[in-house]
Amino acid sequence: MKERKIVVAVDESEESMYALSWCFTNLISHTNNCKLVLLYVKPPPLIYSPAGKGYIFSNDVVVALEQYGKQLTDSVMERAGAICSNFNPTNVSVERVVGSGDAKEVICSAVQKLTADTLVMGTHGYGFFKRALLGSVSDHCAKHANCSVVIVKHP
Amino acid sequence: MKERKIVVAVDESEESMYALSWCFTNLISHTNNCKLVLLYVKPPPLIYSPAGKGYIFSNDVVVALEQYGKQLTDSVMERAGAICSNFNPTNVSVERVVGSGDAKEVICSAVQKLTADTLVMGTHGYGFFKRALLGSVSDHCAKHANCSVVIVKHP
Repeated sequence: MKERKIVVAVDESEESMYALSWCFTNLISHTNNCKLVLLYVKPPPLIYSPAGKGYIFSNDVVVALEQYGKQLTDSVMERAGAICSNFNPTNVSVERVVGSGDAKEVICSAVQKLTADTLVMGTHGYGFFKRALLGSVSDHCAKHANCSVVIVKHP
Repeated sequence: MKERKIVVAVDESEESMYALSWCFTNLISHTNNCKLVLLYVKPPPLIYSPAGKGYIFSNDVVVALEQYGKQLTDSVMERAGAICSNFNPTNVSVERVVGSGDAKEVICSAVQKLTADTLVMGTHGYGFFKRALLGSVSDHCAKHANCSVVIVKHP
């Protein structure tokens, strides 16, 4: 059996951490060889801005925002790493990848570049209006990712 | 570990049969206990009509159409059953459920009634226009089914 490559899209949400656990209990518990890629997509810097687009920040603010982004990345990857260690899989190698930009675009292009077999992600379960207005990352990826996609729903 | 219930939506398509195989090789190969439900949704009778809605058929035609629907159901369930026997899982019990109506609605309500843990389905991979016009059963179910959903893509 050839090595399977599973990409799990992780972010700050409880749902994405649950999706990672689901992956261990449902998808990879007994596979011979498996490569697990933890993919975190940093939002573009301006998302952090409290004041919205078009403002020019002083250097201090830019540095602070960049640092916040870095901390966020570290914190997500740490939590995800802790879940992986918890399941302690002997047959799974774990890799971390950090992207930046529009999450849905970055995830779809990453699974293609990484030649993933399966993409696993949570769903934020927004209500109707939020979903309709924002569009959902998981909806987009389910449709456009060029591999099988698991949308894990938090019970 | 409690018994997991996995619903696989099967239809006439190659994609759905591939999704069923995927399910065996990726999801349930080594699980302790698993109930697999093969769900087939018959289209509403008028879909069979070559002439479209609003026509009144003679009794003969209605009988012929019903028979065609029954044959289609049998043929899908037979193919799905053959795949299941092929993998010959000792820890999996297989059940067959046939519904009727609008596939996306019936699948979502069936997984709820069956209290499924996971729904597995193929994607027809329609091109952009067909997808935009018809809407896709898998898109709808990924969004609205109240359990985790796997969209299996045929390589």
